[in-house]
Amino acid sequence: MITVDTILYNAIVLTMDDDFRIFEPGAVVIKKDRIVAVGNDDMINNEYDAENRIDCHGKLLMPGFINAHTHVPMTLLRGLADDLRLDVWLNGYMMPVEREFVNPDFVRLGTKLACAEMIRSGVTCFADMYYFEDDVAEATAEVGMRALPGQTVMKYPTPDASSFEEGLELAENFIKKWKDHPLILPTIAPHAPYTCTPEILQSCADIAIKYDVPIQIHVAETALEVESLREETGMPVVPYIKKNGIMDAKVIAAHCVHIDEGEIRSLQHAKAGVAHNPTSNLKLASGFAPIQKMLDLKVNVGIGTDGPASNNDLDMIEEMRLATFIAKVTTSDPTALPARQTLTMATRMGAQALHIDHLTGSLEPGKRADLILIDISPVHNSPRFKRDPNGVYAQVVFASKATDITDVMVNGKWLMRERVLTTIDEEAYLKQGNLLAEKIDKFLISREKSVLSKLIAIGGSMEEESFEIQCKVKVDDIKNIMVALKQESIEIERTRHYHEFDTYFIFEDQEQGTLRYREDEFLDERGQITNVRSRLTLIGQKNEKTPEQSVMLSRSRYIAPATHSLRFYREYFQPKRELEIEKLRKRFLINYKEFDFFVNVDTIIKPDMGHFVEVKSRTWSRQDAVYKSKILSELIEVLGLSPALIVTEDYFHLVDRRN
Amino acid sequence: MITVDTILYNAIVLTMDDDFRIFEPGAVVIKKDRIVAVGNDDMINNEYDAENRIDCHGKLLMPGFINAHTHVPMTLLRGLADDLRLDVWLNGYMMPVEREFVNPDFVRLGTKLACAEMIRSGVTCFADMYYFEDDVAEATAEVGMRALPGQTVMKYPTPDASSFEEGLELAENFIKKWKDHPLILPTIAPHAPYTCTPEILQSCADIAIKYDVPIQIHVAETALEVESLREETGMPVVPYIKKNGIMDAKVIAAHCVHIDEGEIRSLQHAKAGVAHNPTSNLKLASGFAPIQKMLDLKVNVGIGTDGPASNNDLDMIEEMRLATFIAKVTTSDPTALPARQTLTMATRMGAQALHIDHLTGSLEPGKRADLILIDISPVHNSPRFKRDPNGVYAQVVFASKATDITDVMVNGKWLMRERVLTTIDEEAYLKQGNLLAEKIDKFLISREKSVLSKLIAIGGSMEEESFEIQCKVKVDDIKNIMVALKQESIEIERTRHYHEFDTYFIFEDQEQGTLRYREDEFLDERGQITNVRSRLTLIGQKNEKTPEQSVMLSRSRYIAPATHSLRFYREYFQPKRELEIEKLRKRFLINYKEFDFFVNVDTIIKPDMGHFVEVKSRTWSRQDAVYKSKILSELIEVLGLSPALIVTEDYFHLVDRRN
Repeated sequence: MITVDTILYNAIVLTMDDDFRIFEPGAVVIKKDRIVAVGNDDMINNEYDAENRIDCHGKLLMPGFINAHTHVPMTLLRGLADDLRLDVWLNGYMMPVEREFVNPDFVRLGTKLACAEMIRSGVTCFADMYYFEDDVAEATAEVGMRALPGQTVMKYPTPDASSFEEGLELAENFIKKWKDHPLILPTIAPHAPYTCTPEILQSCADIAIKYDVPIQIHVAETALEVESLREETGMPVVPYIKKNGIMDAKVIAAHCVHIDEGEIRSLQHAKAGVAHNPTSNLKLASGFAPIQKMLDLKVNVGIGTDGPASNNDLDMIEEMRLATFIAKVTTSDPTALPARQTLTMATRMGAQALHIDHLTGSLEPGKRADLILIDISPVHNSPRFKRDPNGVYAQVVFASKATDITDVMVNGKWLMRERVLTTIDEEAYLKQGNLLAEKIDKFLISREKSVLSKLIAIGGSMEEESFEIQCKVKVDDIKNIMVALKQESIEIERTRHYHEFDTYFIFEDQEQGTLRYREDEFLDERGQITNVRSRLTLIGQKNEKTPEQSVMLSRSRYIAPATHSLRFYREYFQPKRELEIEKLRKRFLINYKEFDFFVNVDTIIKPDMGHFVEVKSRTWSRQDAVYKSKILSELIEVLGLSPALIVTEDYFHLVDRRN
Repeated sequence: MITVDTILYNAIVLTMDDDFRIFEPGAVVIKKDRIVAVGNDDMINNEYDAENRIDCHGKLLMPGFINAHTHVPMTLLRGLADDLRLDVWLNGYMMPVEREFVNPDFVRLGTKLACAEMIRSGVTCFADMYYFEDDVAEATAEVGMRALPGQTVMKYPTPDASSFEEGLELAENFIKKWKDHPLILPTIAPHAPYTCTPEILQSCADIAIKYDVPIQIHVAETALEVESLREETGMPVVPYIKKNGIMDAKVIAAHCVHIDEGEIRSLQHAKAGVAHNPTSNLKLASGFAPIQKMLDLKVNVGIGTDGPASNNDLDMIEEMRLATFIAKVTTSDPTALPARQTLTMATRMGAQALHIDHLTGSLEPGKRADLILIDISPVHNSPRFKRDPNGVYAQVVFASKATDITDVMVNGKWLMRERVLTTIDEEAYLKQGNLLAEKIDKFLISREKSVLSKLIAIGGSMEEESFEIQCKVKVDDIKNIMVALKQESIEIERTRHYHEFDTYFIFEDQEQGTLRYREDEFLDERGQITNVRSRLTLIGQKNEKTPEQSVMLSRSRYIAPATHSLRFYREYFQPKRELEIEKLRKRFLINYKEFDFFVNVDTIIKPDMGHFVEVKSRTWSRQDAVYKSKILSELIEVLGLSPALIVTEDYFHLVDRRN
């Protein structure tokens, strides 16, 4: 008799090994951190003895699930914002909150909570990608889970690095520090091709190769990303990252939604692993990854939950279920991705995808003891049929719930026994998480109260508020004014020609002002578009007449370049209603009596409202405004415009009243 | 103060009413079977008093989920067969087992277990469709759940009716019996357009209208169904059922995967409800139902789990989650079907789809007290953000688990308190279910042992085993034999010309025989196909030579018309390997010396093996065989065939040896 530490017996043992051996009743023998033997109860009982013999009561005993792609600290942002488009979700909510709140404490707390949730749902190992991964690693090692934390590098400043050079240094130090840890395999994570320069990609690859650690990267998650990269470089995503050295390292490619057969072959050739994230790809409407094709071409595909802020959980059973469902429906073949193969992706093949199948992923002698017990007796998973040897895999994939996991062991150490976590004070961390959520709530609620602060939250430089005097006159045609501008008292300093498309967002609370999204097409003399500029202007409400009756003093305009699409701003600001104005504008910067004025000769196309001449000037004080408004009134007459036809409202109000 | 029976307070009350009112902390007031009031704790405490005041500890209090389409007794067949194509699953496994096992006891047990599972996952009401629905109703009423059991009617014999007339009578009696029950709303369920005649559809509609009860029907679940109906009748499914009276009743149309905009408008116009079954539609690869379009066009769409044998659970939270995911990805719009709308489909709109929204589906005074409590504090659903009022709906849809449901009340009566079922002895039923599963396992295991019994299990009339003598001769060309057949001693009674495609299934255990799938194209004189026939032949192994050396006595051929596709048989029988033979055959029925013989003049095209002449005759005894084989040998010579070129093997072995 060989004496060992622990014998788990009277289980239905799913080894998930190459031969998919099942032992029932079966046993697993553990010594220190390793599996020593796996077999039928009788065989094991004849050969091994242990003080610690655990009756598994007919539960399933199998390798723990491997979560091949996630962002664990984002557990703290779960449910912060849902049902939004990726850019609104990311740029409008995730990034502003991350800029404000993400620090080592945040990351540690999020990791602990994520570990609690993952252990409860049978995960023994995960590949992470976030900031402050040293803290992710610390927190994970304290818990006792196995992980591949990936230190993010990108061309933008991140919460933990103000430049990519700093990011690279951080990553290299992180890898050096954790390289030989029994649970932690440090990795480097160039975030994505579109957030990294070629130099960053190459440097990350160099570091990964130097230390022989995997490299994690988001690949072809959205169609937009693929299109943009193709426009920019003429290349699809996989050849592009290959060109930049990534494929020379041990790649873990997350998502891979929009890749073609050639790219799949290229991944296979490089022995890259793919992390399939069905929930996230569906919830964010990214698309269906061609998983069946990848499996046919022998790519190692693991399954990941992605971050809990876009999922919204870390439940690998649901993830597996979804993986098999969408494989079936997208291939129109209900026999596609059967339960056993799906479960393999979540265990052994997941380990292969993460380049750690020598350590974990199946119950085989010599591998680390990373295993779970699942109770398949609950009413939602009964009865049990034994005719089909694949039935037991189907029970896990199609009918089990995460809450059926009763026990979890990693590296020979119990992390959960009979649904009680042994290394995490769940209640304490939950409390901390809820306190933090209150702070984040407050931050966002106060931001959301004001259109201006929502505008500031999504970044972009912003002009200070400004004042201007303005006056507008309806004209029948624009010939006369073009002639009038040529008189001697007027010096034309600059002429521009625009085609302007304005969309006004009107809010419930009118005190918030009105937000204008303007797309200007710059036209040359032949009316051809030479450039396009998008600007966002928050127009305050306070308009007042100057003493000079016909001139309006307009105030408070915050102007920012519009870096996102109109659709983004619509979904982010959620206006009560919208109003559209399209006009052709000839814009003259003139000097009259030593003052600069803008003269806009406008033709309102949509709605069809004819021609207007608008005269404007910046101003800095009420006194200045009063003085300038006199000059302006004079200028109106010099230009031959009729003061009787003066309109004091701006276009927005003119059109709004007309509608 | 008004005295009532029960006050539930200190909850987050999601009314799911038209205004989506939320009360936090909120309360619901119950008297007898009804909701009396819903509001903030303060308001309720000021107005109502009850002996039974229940502190909900900040849990969500909301209407119970409505499972809009299921087959509850099939709980007993969960996991029986998975990852199979619909026809293999249905005709190969479900129907043979149902024929053998479904009876009133089966249905009652299955219903009790399904109720246990559904209560545990927060379902308070379900629409069912199966056989023996009187027993479903009895079992459900005993449990105390609300249900719309639908008595199935179809043109084929069912476990509870040997003809459709009997089925209609059963359904009408069932409706009469249960019409006024407080929990049970009986319905009639013409199974599907393709399993019912127009007369059945019309009769079911008449009964539904006569008793003013809903009618349940499967509509356009698969593309095949739609194609077949269009070929047969020239109509899409919805116009077809409309033509046959169905739309004049209160329709509950399950699936509706393959319907177009016109059909959606037609459903809306008839105020038909749709039951959306995302899991089943994905798992069986049926497709994506156009749910967003249905909602845009104001159709009432509920969510159903479908039967647990094709899901494999009755978990409405998973079903909701999948519904929103696939709506997002199929419309490429992550804002599609947001959480609140999805939850509405599972509650109030589900009730509308089932035509019972006057009774249930939201927490409103006057409606029945059908409600649930959900604990949203577990680690997988934390933290909680309050900024977005829709966040709480997202918590239910995106992160809750069925096991978070703690309490369930139907019609004012608790069915679960703190996760303990109050009206079902779950353990006892689980035991019974497992015992039954063992019997079903035995039945199928013994069936699966034998190719013959698998063949018999899928039905179809079968010829008895037969014996024949046969002899085959290789010839260089077929001209000589055609001339030889014209001599006077031979009378040609019939001539046929075939193009034959044979697929042989070879099994591991050769004792099982070989299964041949033959598709015969009948050719006319010009070689045009006039008819096609598919036949399945199980060929026994025992071949023996007769005393007349060159003639083989062949035995045991079970012949059945092949009503399914080659693909079906391949997936159902799972042969170890296959072998294909394609040949052109001229078949002559001749009379020689008072005996009938078949002379087959064959050209083997695939694999290319040249020409053979095969001479055969049926025989009934060894003595007869010996005698006939002498005549046959004589005939061979008369036909000018060389006995030296006689081949005693059949084509299958000839080709197999060659390969």
